[in-house]
Amino acid sequence: MADYKAPLRDIQFTMYELLDYEQHWQALPKFEETGADIANAIMEENAKFCENVLAPINQSGDAEGCQWNDGEVTTPKGFKEAYQQFVEAGWPSMTHSPDHGGQGLPPSLGLVLNEMVGTANWSWGMYPGLSHGAMNTIEEHGTDEQKEVYLTKLVSGEWTGTMCLTEPHCGTDLGMLRTKAEPNADGSYAISGTKIFISAGEHDMAENIVHIVLARLPDAPAGTKGISLFIVPKFNIAEDGSVADRNGVSCGSIEHKMGIKASATCVMNFDNAKGYLIGPPNRGLNCMFTFMNTARLGTALQGVAHAELGFQKSLDYARDRLQMRSLSGVKNPDGPADPIIVHPDVRRMLLTQKAFAEGGRMLMAYCGKLVDIISNGEEESAKEADAKLAFLTPICKAFLTEVGFESANHGVQCFGGHGFISEWGAEQNVRDCRISMLYEGTTGIQALDLLGRKVLMSQGEIMKPFTKEVHKFCQANAGNPLVATLAEANKQWGELTMKVGMAAMENPDEVGAASVDYLMFSGYVVLGYFWALAATKAQAALDEGRGDAAFYTAKVQAANFYFARILPRTESLATTMTSGASSLMDMDVESFAF
Amino acid sequence: MADYKAPLRDIQFTMYELLDYEQHWQALPKFEETGADIANAIMEENAKFCENVLAPINQSGDAEGCQWNDGEVTTPKGFKEAYQQFVEAGWPSMTHSPDHGGQGLPPSLGLVLNEMVGTANWSWGMYPGLSHGAMNTIEEHGTDEQKEVYLTKLVSGEWTGTMCLTEPHCGTDLGMLRTKAEPNADGSYAISGTKIFISAGEHDMAENIVHIVLARLPDAPAGTKGISLFIVPKFNIAEDGSVADRNGVSCGSIEHKMGIKASATCVMNFDNAKGYLIGPPNRGLNCMFTFMNTARLGTALQGVAHAELGFQKSLDYARDRLQMRSLSGVKNPDGPADPIIVHPDVRRMLLTQKAFAEGGRMLMAYCGKLVDIISNGEEESAKEADAKLAFLTPICKAFLTEVGFESANHGVQCFGGHGFISEWGAEQNVRDCRISMLYEGTTGIQALDLLGRKVLMSQGEIMKPFTKEVHKFCQANAGNPLVATLAEANKQWGELTMKVGMAAMENPDEVGAASVDYLMFSGYVVLGYFWALAATKAQAALDEGRGDAAFYTAKVQAANFYFARILPRTESLATTMTSGASSLMDMDVESFAF
Repeated sequence: MADYKAPLRDIQFTMYELLDYEQHWQALPKFEETGADIANAIMEENAKFCENVLAPINQSGDAEGCQWNDGEVTTPKGFKEAYQQFVEAGWPSMTHSPDHGGQGLPPSLGLVLNEMVGTANWSWGMYPGLSHGAMNTIEEHGTDEQKEVYLTKLVSGEWTGTMCLTEPHCGTDLGMLRTKAEPNADGSYAISGTKIFISAGEHDMAENIVHIVLARLPDAPAGTKGISLFIVPKFNIAEDGSVADRNGVSCGSIEHKMGIKASATCVMNFDNAKGYLIGPPNRGLNCMFTFMNTARLGTALQGVAHAELGFQKSLDYARDRLQMRSLSGVKNPDGPADPIIVHPDVRRMLLTQKAFAEGGRMLMAYCGKLVDIISNGEEESAKEADAKLAFLTPICKAFLTEVGFESANHGVQCFGGHGFISEWGAEQNVRDCRISMLYEGTTGIQALDLLGRKVLMSQGEIMKPFTKEVHKFCQANAGNPLVATLAEANKQWGELTMKVGMAAMENPDEVGAASVDYLMFSGYVVLGYFWALAATKAQAALDEGRGDAAFYTAKVQAANFYFARILPRTESLATTMTSGASSLMDMDVESFAF
Repeated sequence: MADYKAPLRDIQFTMYELLDYEQHWQALPKFEETGADIANAIMEENAKFCENVLAPINQSGDAEGCQWNDGEVTTPKGFKEAYQQFVEAGWPSMTHSPDHGGQGLPPSLGLVLNEMVGTANWSWGMYPGLSHGAMNTIEEHGTDEQKEVYLTKLVSGEWTGTMCLTEPHCGTDLGMLRTKAEPNADGSYAISGTKIFISAGEHDMAENIVHIVLARLPDAPAGTKGISLFIVPKFNIAEDGSVADRNGVSCGSIEHKMGIKASATCVMNFDNAKGYLIGPPNRGLNCMFTFMNTARLGTALQGVAHAELGFQKSLDYARDRLQMRSLSGVKNPDGPADPIIVHPDVRRMLLTQKAFAEGGRMLMAYCGKLVDIISNGEEESAKEADAKLAFLTPICKAFLTEVGFESANHGVQCFGGHGFISEWGAEQNVRDCRISMLYEGTTGIQALDLLGRKVLMSQGEIMKPFTKEVHKFCQANAGNPLVATLAEANKQWGELTMKVGMAAMENPDEVGAASVDYLMFSGYVVLGYFWALAATKAQAALDEGRGDAAFYTAKVQAANFYFARILPRTESLATTMTSGASSLMDMDVESFAF
């Protein structure tokens, strides 16, 4: 059994057949030279690296974990070497601007590559993944000098980056953060404080680490409006740009945690560390949004990754493991029993994983197009794409990680008791996935962002471009048997938004009471749109006799499965999200337990 | 923060106020001397042992795990000492027959004690837990001599027991098992073969281990009708009943697994081990059903245990952790933020855990009464109770572990990122819980047992005593605002059974396609009955002004929550379970992935 096989056929269907990536790239001046031939060659190389280098050290990385010793962190066997290969092949620079050594490829292609890296080895992918956050922040808010000194080294992959937000007493509530930045005489700042949960905060893979740190200036107002952003390198930089003496930042310990054990989660102590202001004073949280949105899309990919990996592992097992006979007649007469894939409930678990992995891939590829349009810079279309992406991002992040976790658990369940045993890797997939619903804003926070901050604050306007697109699709494809159901769900989505909005005007707690159910409802409808779209495209290919009939037939069947077994979850969610806040709010804090 | 606090108030409400345990015991000759005073004294002692001895070694046991060294297994620090205390206090003998040194207390009380032990430390509880399976099997099927030699030592706790069913190539499909039993000249048998996943198969806590082993006699027919049951002690027994030389059974290794790491999961090698036939030849699987049903109820408790533990941990955290302000106005003006329990979605997650922990407790206590009636021996009532328990057991096992796992995950989610960190224990609770949906028959197997083997084979007759009880309750309590909803769900349950049954007559795959959704639907309705019952009892106490108003008010509120936010899940399940098998069965095995 291979550790991981990159699903290139499905990725290419999603890009070219479902979402017309070639035409999309050609229409954007920055990316017009990216054709399917180039993209496919890159993806095939990436697939090889993921399958042959990253996947084989995924399970060993989990077993070994990271080691902390007197401030130094050692990553598991093979991690450093894989990173060197990654840098030498030029992967870190793929989607960054040629101004700083990047290759200028579309961000959408980067998302596709990241899915493969993350599925092969999520823990490993965290190290270069965090760098992208730092790069995007410096690219958008840094001075030319900061770009010259830090960005080029990050783009080349010689250095890695981190984002230092969380402190022991504040995660979601960054307004409470205490890390201080005192001005030095030379224009730099002395940063002091403790940050926790810093992924890739310390490791042995690169010669320097560039921390992006949230801290308060001495005269800063309280709360979120008094937070500034600083660049704090692990090693100070000499005049010639080379690495000099050690800065006042060190890793105090690493966390023992449920999963992604090969990713170092660090406590970082800043003790008068030399830092450089990035962006305007007291506007750090605004600057941080650039990173946060990237990070949220990156984490959304984690849902797809664990659904895909769980699916691959459990599908292999379900085809091999012989146990019991099919209730509708023996399917493997020469064997002592039938492979468990004959059993309807095993198929239900496999198809659920498939529906979420492939459906999530479609949604992410759709978002990738939006990112391309935004980064291409043409004002009007960028603004529209930005609004649509703002709407879809919390859905991607929370919905895809929730169903990714469900999928990873179905993956375990297909193995029976063997799923609980480490050797098969199915249980690691669950443990690694669990963090995705927590970091970069929990599911509850995403749901408040979606319903409260975006949908209701815009009085529903922000969702309209998307729901209109679904509506137009339904009108144009009325012949597809799935479309009537989709149109109904799309209509109900709007009605529920109204209903929840009305309730929220009476009582603000109604927002929080409805929000997670509303977000999940939204996710099921969004994925319903992409599955219906996939079914129409696949059916057209079959009707035209384009070949590859088995692939297109399976696509139509998977869509049928989604509509029969998954989309109806909206029914219960519609009821619970409108059941009112009182069943949640009535109980006294003291009365929850006796 | 305490590691665990036994929820005695809620347990007592469930036993005495909800289910009239005192009258129930008084009506059964075997248990008529068990009153609330005795039972409460025992439960309070047990609570102390669980809180003070077992809970403090739960997290350290996970971190340390079991160690295998050349066939010997060492349990984590404190485990052996805790077991000695347990034995000295007489806990193993509590519910067993006085004929073999037991104390003859009702099995229902044993279930209550087991919930506390399991919540405090599930891994530890596996060792004495498995012994009960061995005891029940020998008590029911053993000869007088076997009872004298083995049962008395198991009842005293001096020895422990195991159940050896699974082999590498067969778990669910025991018909394929290969372990052989060759007759010896002295009337014993030479047992040879490999068993896997043997909980407590080897350890350092007791002086001998009594394995109950499934194996085949030389002339046995193929399949499940050729399996016999044997007693195979780790050490042979001398004439005087003392431990003699080592038998030919050894532990080849222990599994590395996701959770319950302090419970040794052993590969057991039988190499001409001396065994003794128990029960009639070739009827081993039938004899095993005694154990399996006990084990399934025991595993159902695991769902309650992890829901309760997750609830306790996350409730403490949600009351302490300050983060953000309530949307409906500041609740903690003197602090820098409000405790997160003010947020509606945090309450949703807490109340979901509470609803499943307390609801599961009610269901298990109801089943405990049935076990009492069965073991009391009065023929007609025992037969009725047996049929009802047969119907409820797969629901208890699968539904309570599924919602227990959901609860454990809500527990983690309430902690935000800290939930992923080992130190809080929330993530261990998820890992420990994950096995409960797998062992003793997966959720899928329970669902086939419920729908295929029980409900449809009896043409629905087996469910009627329970649904009639619900119906009568609804008629008698029409004034309760929850009852109309319950009556509707109960009616729908019957209708869906008919519908699924009709479809199954056309195509047997419809059973497997509907089974898990059907089981979950059943579970939600069953728990709906208990929550409605709890609400009526609590409301009556409030109306009568019996005092303790905060407790009863919270019970009514929790019931309202269950009906508003949990029971509506039946809506989607009703749709998906009747959507037909074709969306699952159409896809070719080769077309699941490309």
